[in-house]
Amino acid sequence: MIGVGIIGLGTVGIGTYKILEQYHSLIKDKSGQDIRVVKCADIDTKRPRDISLKQGIMTAEAREVIECKDVDIVVELIGGIEPANEYIRMAIQNKKWVVTANKALLAEKGDELFTLAAKQNVEIGFEASVCGGIPLIKAIRDGLVGNRINYILGILNGTSNYILTKMTLEGMSFEKALEEAQRLGFAEADPTFDVEGIDAAHKLCILIRLAFQCHVKMRDVVTGGITKIDPIDIEFAREFGYRIKLLAVAKEENEKIEARVEPAMIPVVHPMSNVDGVYNAVYIVGDKTGPTLYYGKGAGSEPTGSAVVSDIVDMAYRMRGGSPLPKIPSVSKAKKMRSGEKSFVPYYMRFTAKDRPGVLSKVSGVLAEYNISISSVIQKGRKENGYVPIVILTHEATEQNLKNAKAAIDRLAVIKGESVSIRIEEGRL
Amino acid sequence: MIGVGIIGLGTVGIGTYKILEQYHSLIKDKSGQDIRVVKCADIDTKRPRDISLKQGIMTAEAREVIECKDVDIVVELIGGIEPANEYIRMAIQNKKWVVTANKALLAEKGDELFTLAAKQNVEIGFEASVCGGIPLIKAIRDGLVGNRINYILGILNGTSNYILTKMTLEGMSFEKALEEAQRLGFAEADPTFDVEGIDAAHKLCILIRLAFQCHVKMRDVVTGGITKIDPIDIEFAREFGYRIKLLAVAKEENEKIEARVEPAMIPVVHPMSNVDGVYNAVYIVGDKTGPTLYYGKGAGSEPTGSAVVSDIVDMAYRMRGGSPLPKIPSVSKAKKMRSGEKSFVPYYMRFTAKDRPGVLSKVSGVLAEYNISISSVIQKGRKENGYVPIVILTHEATEQNLKNAKAAIDRLAVIKGESVSIRIEEGRL
Repeated sequence: MIGVGIIGLGTVGIGTYKILEQYHSLIKDKSGQDIRVVKCADIDTKRPRDISLKQGIMTAEAREVIECKDVDIVVELIGGIEPANEYIRMAIQNKKWVVTANKALLAEKGDELFTLAAKQNVEIGFEASVCGGIPLIKAIRDGLVGNRINYILGILNGTSNYILTKMTLEGMSFEKALEEAQRLGFAEADPTFDVEGIDAAHKLCILIRLAFQCHVKMRDVVTGGITKIDPIDIEFAREFGYRIKLLAVAKEENEKIEARVEPAMIPVVHPMSNVDGVYNAVYIVGDKTGPTLYYGKGAGSEPTGSAVVSDIVDMAYRMRGGSPLPKIPSVSKAKKMRSGEKSFVPYYMRFTAKDRPGVLSKVSGVLAEYNISISSVIQKGRKENGYVPIVILTHEATEQNLKNAKAAIDRLAVIKGESVSIRIEEGRL
Repeated sequence: MIGVGIIGLGTVGIGTYKILEQYHSLIKDKSGQDIRVVKCADIDTKRPRDISLKQGIMTAEAREVIECKDVDIVVELIGGIEPANEYIRMAIQNKKWVVTANKALLAEKGDELFTLAAKQNVEIGFEASVCGGIPLIKAIRDGLVGNRINYILGILNGTSNYILTKMTLEGMSFEKALEEAQRLGFAEADPTFDVEGIDAAHKLCILIRLAFQCHVKMRDVVTGGITKIDPIDIEFAREFGYRIKLLAVAKEENEKIEARVEPAMIPVVHPMSNVDGVYNAVYIVGDKTGPTLYYGKGAGSEPTGSAVVSDIVDMAYRMRGGSPLPKIPSVSKAKKMRSGEKSFVPYYMRFTAKDRPGVLSKVSGVLAEYNISISSVIQKGRKENGYVPIVILTHEATEQNLKNAKAAIDRLAVIKGESVSIRIEEGRL
C-alpha cells in the first residue's frame, strides 16, 4: 500500500481526497496500485466539508502529516509561498515524495526545491500546477522526451480566457465580463493575479523548465494583462482573421529564450484560437513530433484533483522495492533571455486619426522610418468628432522599432490619444 | 544502461533509431536514462537507409534480437499479424519488455498478448500504435487514471482526414483528393484500410481497452468509410453548421458499449471539427476532468518514433532493480455491446425529390410513422430534370427507425434513387 498525506483540505484537497477514496478500486484495477489517504492536515479542522473523512485522519498540524510513518507521499495543497515551501522542504528532508499544485512556489523556488529533491533522491510531482485536468506535464516530460522543444503557446489562465471569450462572442466590456466571471465563481474577488497575467506567467516558468531544460525567473517573463483590451480591437481582429487571447509564449532560438504573457492575436485557423471559456490549452512543437496540442479544464476541484492523483499513481509504480527512481527535471541550466527589443513579430496597430487627406501617408511614413512595412490597412467605422480609426497590420518588426514608431506617431498632430499595438503570433502551424 | 533491440527497420524503425542515437544525451539529460540500441533485425539488411548503423548491430534474424542478452526491450515494428505476433510472444517468453506500434495486432490479439505479458510480469508499450506523435496512451492510462471515461471521439486516420479536408475546404471530389494524397505519400497505393475505416477501427479497439477497461473485437465495431461521401453533403453540412469527419466514437452507458467508425457530422463549434489535414485528435471525457483533447500528427517516421522512444524511457524508469513493476492494462472484462439499432442520435438526411407540392408532407409523414421528428429542413439548389434535393435534420432517432424510414421514403414514387443519411455527433461539449 502507498500512503498519502494531504496538507490543505480546500478545493483541490477535497477533490483529491474524493477521487482517491471513491475510486480506490478503480485505480487499483487500472494500475495495480493500492493507494490510501492516511493523514490530512488543515488549519481549519472543523469546517464542514462535502466529504466524510475517515476516523482520526484529520489534524491541524502539517508536521503530523510529514512525519507520519505511513505517509509515503506528501501532497501540498495550501498554495502560496510560505509555509508551503517550508512543509515541502521538511517532507523532502524526511525522504518523502511530494506532490504539489503550487505554481507560484515552483515558479519562485523551483530551482532550490528540485535541487534539494535530487539530493535526497525523491521526486516532486507537479502535474496539478499547470492546466489542472490536462495531463500536460506528463506529455512534455514523458511523451515528448525524445524531442527538442523550442516553441510553446499556452492559454494558461481560465479566468482571463473566460472574460476574453465573453468579450469576443458576446461583445461584452471587460468590466461586465469580469463581473459575470466573479458571479459564476470563475474569478476571485481580487482578480489581479489572473487578469494581469501573473498566474499564467507562473505556469509558463514551469513549462519552460520542463520543455527547454532551463530556469527562467518571473522577472524575465514579459507580463501583461487584459484589462486594457478594447472591444473595438477584438472586432478589428476578427475582420483581419484573428482572435485576441491572453497568450503565454516561449521561444528558444540560438540558446536564447523569449518568454511572454500578453494579449496577442492568433489566426482563426490556428487550433488555439478556438479555445474558449474557462478552458486551457497548450500548443507545443516538438522537433520530432511536430505540433501537438493539449486541451481541457485548467482548474476546479476534481479536474485538479485528478492531476494530483495521476502524479501519485505515477510515483507508486516506482516506489516499490528498495531504491525507487524519481523523475527529476534535469539539472536546469540558466540560459540567456532574448531581449524583448529583439523579438521580431508582426503587429496590429490602431490609431485615432483626423479624417483628412494625407494622414495615412504621414503614419506610413513614420513606420517606414523605423523599418516597419505594412501588410494591410483598414480605415472605416464611425467618424467621431472628426476622428476615425485607422488600423494597420505590419510585417515583422522588432519590438524596439515598434515602440519608437508608435511614440512618434502619437506625437503627430493628426493623431489623438495613445495608439494601440498588439502582437501577432502566427503560431507555427 | 538499457539495451534496445529493434525488429523491423522501416519507416518507424529508422525514426526510432535516429532519435535514440541522435538524442542519446538529450534523453539522458531529461530522464537520467542511458538508453542504447544494441541490435536491429530486418529481412532486408542491405537496403540503403538514411542512418549510419553501428558496426555489427544489424541482423536478418529477429530471433537474434529477441535472444540477445543485452536487449532489455524488444521493439516490434514490422506490422501485420504474423510473424509480429510470434516475435512478441517469443520476447515475452524470454522476459523481455516489448514496445510495438502494431495496431492491427493489438486489436486482433491484444487480449492474449496482454494476458501473456501479465503472466510473465513484463510490459507491452503501445504508445506508437494510436495517433503517432500524440502522447495519448499515457494521457489515458496515466493522466486520467483517476477518472471513469465513458466517451471517446477520435479522428484517428490521417489519410481519410486529409481527403475529407480537401473535399471540404477546396471542394475536391473524393477521387481527386485521394489521388493527391497518394501523390504526396499520405495514402498508400491500396488505400482500403485507411479510407474504409479499418485502420481507425483497430485504433478505436485499443483506446476502448484502455479507457473502458474492456475488450472489443473488430467485428463489434460498426465500420464505414468515406468513399461514398458526396461533396454536396459536405456543403449542406456547412449550411447547418456542421463538418463531416471520419469519426471514431465509443460510448459506454449502463455497462454497454457502442463503438463506431463512420463519416459523421460534428458541429463547427466543437474543437474536433477543426482538426484538418493529416492531423489526428482524440476528445476524451473523464468524469473528473471533464472534456480533454489531444492533437498532433498521427503518423510519420519521427512522430511515431518519438512515441516508441517515450515508451522505452517510461519503461526504463521502472526497469532498475530486481523486480520492475510493469504497467498492464487491467485484466479486461468483456462487456456487452449496445446494438447499433438502439443507438440514439440525430441524423442528416438528403432526398432527391420531384419538385412538386406535397412531397415534403409525404416525406415527413413517413418519418412521423417511425417516430422521427424533424428539427430543420432546407430545400434549395438547382432543379435537375424536375428533381430537387430536400435536406432534413432530425431529432434523436434510433438507427433501426432511421433505416426503416429511409427505406420507406426511397420507395415513394416522388423520390429518386437512394437517399443519404449521416449520423450527427453533437460531441458532448
